[in-house]
Amino acid sequence: MQRVCIISTGTELMLGSTVDSNANFLSRCLTDLGFKVVTRYTVGDSEEYIREAFTQGLRQADLIVSSGGLGPTLDDLTKQTACQVLGVQPVLNNEEVQRLRDFFRRRNREMPEANLKQAMFPPEALILPNRVGTAPGMYIARQGKAVALLPGPPREMEHMYRSALEPVLKKEFSIEPKVARQTIKVLGPGESQVEALLGSLMEQPDYSIALLAKDGEVHVKVSAEAKDLEQAEAIRDRAVSLVEAKLVSHVFGYDDDTLEGRVAVLLEEQGLKLAVAESCTGGLLSKVLTDIPGSSLYFWGSVCSYSNEAKEMLLDVNPDTLNRFGAVSPETAAEMATGLRSRSGVDYTLSITGIAGPGGGSAEKPVGLVFLGLAGPEGCSVKELRFVGHREAIRILAVKSALDLLRRQLTRGGSKA
Amino acid sequence: MQRVCIISTGTELMLGSTVDSNANFLSRCLTDLGFKVVTRYTVGDSEEYIREAFTQGLRQADLIVSSGGLGPTLDDLTKQTACQVLGVQPVLNNEEVQRLRDFFRRRNREMPEANLKQAMFPPEALILPNRVGTAPGMYIARQGKAVALLPGPPREMEHMYRSALEPVLKKEFSIEPKVARQTIKVLGPGESQVEALLGSLMEQPDYSIALLAKDGEVHVKVSAEAKDLEQAEAIRDRAVSLVEAKLVSHVFGYDDDTLEGRVAVLLEEQGLKLAVAESCTGGLLSKVLTDIPGSSLYFWGSVCSYSNEAKEMLLDVNPDTLNRFGAVSPETAAEMATGLRSRSGVDYTLSITGIAGPGGGSAEKPVGLVFLGLAGPEGCSVKELRFVGHREAIRILAVKSALDLLRRQLTRGGSKA
Repeated sequence: MQRVCIISTGTELMLGSTVDSNANFLSRCLTDLGFKVVTRYTVGDSEEYIREAFTQGLRQADLIVSSGGLGPTLDDLTKQTACQVLGVQPVLNNEEVQRLRDFFRRRNREMPEANLKQAMFPPEALILPNRVGTAPGMYIARQGKAVALLPGPPREMEHMYRSALEPVLKKEFSIEPKVARQTIKVLGPGESQVEALLGSLMEQPDYSIALLAKDGEVHVKVSAEAKDLEQAEAIRDRAVSLVEAKLVSHVFGYDDDTLEGRVAVLLEEQGLKLAVAESCTGGLLSKVLTDIPGSSLYFWGSVCSYSNEAKEMLLDVNPDTLNRFGAVSPETAAEMATGLRSRSGVDYTLSITGIAGPGGGSAEKPVGLVFLGLAGPEGCSVKELRFVGHREAIRILAVKSALDLLRRQLTRGGSKA
Repeated sequence: MQRVCIISTGTELMLGSTVDSNANFLSRCLTDLGFKVVTRYTVGDSEEYIREAFTQGLRQADLIVSSGGLGPTLDDLTKQTACQVLGVQPVLNNEEVQRLRDFFRRRNREMPEANLKQAMFPPEALILPNRVGTAPGMYIARQGKAVALLPGPPREMEHMYRSALEPVLKKEFSIEPKVARQTIKVLGPGESQVEALLGSLMEQPDYSIALLAKDGEVHVKVSAEAKDLEQAEAIRDRAVSLVEAKLVSHVFGYDDDTLEGRVAVLLEEQGLKLAVAESCTGGLLSKVLTDIPGSSLYFWGSVCSYSNEAKEMLLDVNPDTLNRFGAVSPETAAEMATGLRSRSGVDYTLSITGIAGPGGGSAEKPVGLVFLGLAGPEGCSVKELRFVGHREAIRILAVKSALDLLRRQLTRGGSKA
């Protein structure tokens, strides 16, 4: 098996102010790809220690993947140090200079001279484009060893790994995976309820199931290993079917699926439009729905009615309702949903009103009390929920529950929920 | 300054299934104690790589702190390997044997023979008791170097560090914190522009400045070391003043401050109310503003007008404006802000309209083009911005820029922006 050494550079890591999530991401991805990660080094922005890490890594592994230290500033030392260790000489790459100049021109900004450093590469290297930031990465093979340099910001690093480095590694190392995995995603029952529903499936000899609770969702991770990938996939597929049969309508998706993505597909397939009215979630439901590119196809817009005035003025909630039942009540949730539906003329509206805390709770209406409204061609329904946790957790759980309410409504036509 | 090497062992780390939070915890604690963490190694449960890590660590640092590999099973190799490298011989410690037997007796369980391994220590070592699990740690000083071994489970490791190791380190290394830090947070100029503005401040002998770019913000991290903490703080304070003098109105906060938190304070102090109208950011600005508990004091609410219809219906944007100039135009941004201000009667409204991508761009109006509107008692102003990056980055940058526009407006009364 091909051995890998992962190097992370950055003084912020050594101070403990930043968790080295890059090393974890790369360990997972490279293991999945079939590599064996043997060592990981984390060093500050120090030429001495960066040099030692690369020297050791080349001795211990067939491939080094590093992240960090590709920026334009003085303390970005990874590229020049790695090149020294490899005995190659970075020179100005004219295409990269042009790309950098374009980058700054598009932003109407002068390019600082320091940035030219980011256009220096040894001629032997393959340049890995950075579609997210200014620092390109590189891949270089020398004397039976390979070194890949990725940028430090996790989003840039992950994007470059997936889009540029992984395809190169697959080709250069002719790798064959033997483990098949799938994650089944569930909303509704908690982790221990899922465990009880799965029962004996949790302890089978030829595949393994692990549960992960995350923001109200439960992820059921199925993995199977066999003598080749085809056989592993067959075992995994059988296990996934058994899990699905136990969890039925609670399953909303697989692997990278999201609840909002599932809702988006259902709305698009059925040619429906959605608008939302939020209070305690403050725009989070709207934000999550519009995280999806192209959401303007089915998303009309939203109102975050954080004040009673906004509820009356933008959603036509009756002042009497607010006075008699309060802003956090099933009556207000219903009027928020129906008011916005009448105004916008869309097919479905979702509403959320509740107490996210830490303040604003009472014995009668405690922090965590949330009402969801769903208005559609079938009429309007309201659901009461009680969450426990801090402000952020309550807001996330409220948003997920609202999305799930709509998901179950939209799937009711097809399979029974 | 005393140098530290941190070693984490455990195959689960190399597979990426577990994040190495121990290394982060120890980095923070040891830095706060006055040590300089120079290298971190993460290795699997392999004698070869554990030996290399300890050998390297002893060369590079005055102190090694490791976590993991102290358990009773075959793959727990840290203690025996570290002892080999140090040239010391673990022998059965009778007190520890007794303690282990008691531990199992209290739980009415038979002690597996394998556990005896956990009672083996070199006579030179100080045994660090484990009040949470079965594996004790150890501390040993040899030839001017010191090595501490802690268990892997984070709860056990953290407890042992705080209760047993930290007091020993304070005594043995006669440490007194001598480093003073502050982070100055900036929005507006990019990382290399900040570096250019700071000029020679970046390279001073008695304090150090590191820059970190994060979601459009630049964090200027100032740290000063001196013979005692008081003097370090004085040097740091002088450095911070010099940095502030260069960056003036671009500075929005310090340390844990956030941009939205700064805006919240300004609105509250001045008794002002805010409402926002968003398009491409889809509710993110509203969400960020309401992340802050108590935001209902100054936040009226928001409209996410994702469709033209919503812009007309909820914000009174003129259909002619949309037809003539388009939804992404300075004219629409202005009408969104003024329309919502008239409706809500609040002091200030912010608006955002733009193209977050990946679709929807054109040569004339590319992905990343964003217009911000700010309406207030002074009238309405519009700002044009061009961002480069993916959808999420563009949305975050647009939200930060909108908050910064308002921050600069609200501070203009006091210090000139």
